[in-house]
Amino acid sequence: MNTIYLDNSATTQTDAEVIKTMLPYMTTAYGNPSSVYQLGRETRKAVEEAREQVAKALGCEPNEIYFTSGGSESDNTAIRGIAYGYQTKGNHIITSKIEHPAVLETCKQLEKEGFEVSYIDVNENGMINLEELKSAIKPTTTLISIMFANNEIGTIQPMKQIGTIARENHIYFHTDAVQAVGNVKIDVKKMNIDSLSLSAHKFYGPKGIGALYVKKGIQFNPIICGGHQEKNKRAGTENVAGIVGLGKAIELVNQKLEEHITKVKELRDYYEKQVLENIPNIKINGDTENRLPGNSNISFQGVQGDSLLLNLDFKGICASSRKCLYFWFARSFSCIVSNWSTTRNST
Amino acid sequence: MNTIYLDNSATTQTDAEVIKTMLPYMTTAYGNPSSVYQLGRETRKAVEEAREQVAKALGCEPNEIYFTSGGSESDNTAIRGIAYGYQTKGNHIITSKIEHPAVLETCKQLEKEGFEVSYIDVNENGMINLEELKSAIKPTTTLISIMFANNEIGTIQPMKQIGTIARENHIYFHTDAVQAVGNVKIDVKKMNIDSLSLSAHKFYGPKGIGALYVKKGIQFNPIICGGHQEKNKRAGTENVAGIVGLGKAIELVNQKLEEHITKVKELRDYYEKQVLENIPNIKINGDTENRLPGNSNISFQGVQGDSLLLNLDFKGICASSRKCLYFWFARSFSCIVSNWSTTRNST
Repeated sequence: MNTIYLDNSATTQTDAEVIKTMLPYMTTAYGNPSSVYQLGRETRKAVEEAREQVAKALGCEPNEIYFTSGGSESDNTAIRGIAYGYQTKGNHIITSKIEHPAVLETCKQLEKEGFEVSYIDVNENGMINLEELKSAIKPTTTLISIMFANNEIGTIQPMKQIGTIARENHIYFHTDAVQAVGNVKIDVKKMNIDSLSLSAHKFYGPKGIGALYVKKGIQFNPIICGGHQEKNKRAGTENVAGIVGLGKAIELVNQKLEEHITKVKELRDYYEKQVLENIPNIKINGDTENRLPGNSNISFQGVQGDSLLLNLDFKGICASSRKCLYFWFARSFSCIVSNWSTTRNST
Repeated sequence: MNTIYLDNSATTQTDAEVIKTMLPYMTTAYGNPSSVYQLGRETRKAVEEAREQVAKALGCEPNEIYFTSGGSESDNTAIRGIAYGYQTKGNHIITSKIEHPAVLETCKQLEKEGFEVSYIDVNENGMINLEELKSAIKPTTTLISIMFANNEIGTIQPMKQIGTIARENHIYFHTDAVQAVGNVKIDVKKMNIDSLSLSAHKFYGPKGIGALYVKKGIQFNPIICGGHQEKNKRAGTENVAGIVGLGKAIELVNQKLEEHITKVKELRDYYEKQVLENIPNIKINGDTENRLPGNSNISFQGVQGDSLLLNLDFKGICASSRKCLYFWFARSFSCIVSNWSTTRNST
């Protein structure tokens, strides 16, 4: 039975070229990048080259990139780091109700520690309201954290406008771009983004490695203390093979970004057309205009998500179902999330 | 020129068998372990098997093992997690002056946050004094954090006695065992260890993956919040290939532990004998009895550590030099740290 993998929002298959780039750093080039001898200098060079690849993809400087173990660590570091870094200025954070748990749970934890958090709402397409965002701003607001693209319904938020509002109000703007990198053109400078999280395994890179962009000059406290790695902002021996894989993966997705977007959008639209024509009582969720190209979130009235997934699995089809607590359509529907990004290595 | 790698305390070369075990989880078995379909169940199974391998090596239960991104994250999680988990009981922590920065920096940070930390001293061999440890205990002490074996002079601390003192005083005992795993027989239950950190790349596993053992029933707050991975104690998609590699690496080192200890001890002793016979004004540091089998830390009077390292590098020899701030011999000597653990894959 052939596997039909429609869950690239959960994770992607690592690109064969990425693995090839990583392998020397798992075998012969095993030095610790902090070591002064040749074996160490070799891996230090590889880490710094990957940093340049990430910076190039985001439109920032290499010294604004910090490697982490993934998207969750990046989100935790940015939100907790900036919140505490600027606590003398204020203790108020604004985020949305549909953020990834890495953002929402960090905010809930910060509330327990004395911070105040405003959770702004979204409309039926998962889009935040910029006026509501403006209204939520207080003199004590230090951070706005709004995701770039939603992991369930794929809605892409208006980054540049949010960034402008943040900048006008002297507030830092963090975005969880874990679902966006590799699917949307990103330029942190043009979009006024101060801090951004990404995770390699969402764009054909390896699991267990991510990065955090933080604009030069922004203070943030590390969440993992110890050695001097990552300019004292993230302790621990660098995951060299992972970092090299992340660098290669982001370079590859950005090289063919437009082609990728066109291709997966076509596949996704064809799929949705077929489903709409052949299955009654369904609803396609998310914003028609501003949606990730490969994302498809469909509600099937009267059908249990889990049992539908089980039946799809029997046929070799991999997809996800969500409870979609935050969306109006969740009241009577179960929704199935698919991501039509192509699986690179499969035949 | 042949490379002579004597820096296995910094990092080891990943075992070829470990890489072979990891590869399927980088290529065909790429599912997210949280996914319900076959591709996800397959990686979930692999993660749980690795957890069993780690538990078996440490003498604990699999549900007492949490995967992290490495030793630093494990140390941060244990110390910060337990300190905050039991802050209603007390705010005092005891550690030693010669801990790894992942422990020392976390303790310093906790001091800024209102905790009290006692840093106990070591003798000229790097050994703590158990009476001093007992004297440092206060009614508010909740945690003792003493490293298993030192990363510079290789001194092995008396784990069982420290564990007994901690238990008798109803205090939790964490140990940074990053240098010990793969070089010393460990049994957390017999040694009364409540919490232990390890890092795969120190014992022929990959970089970027570690584990934390925490005894069942001990409360600890996560430092990375978000998804429900690792029983809600460590958010983020699991680094499946890394976890599988860690499991295999710990299984392999434990299978041949006694043989490995004998072999590297012989090599190390031969090396030290030769150096002693041929070079004047040197001193071998560390505890003669309780020392890691492969560790060799030698002070060379009147020689700059960095320039010695540079000259060794010209000859293809990889070693480390330390300032050894905490040890008396640092006053007039530079010391070179070597680790004679065999490099598995080299020819």
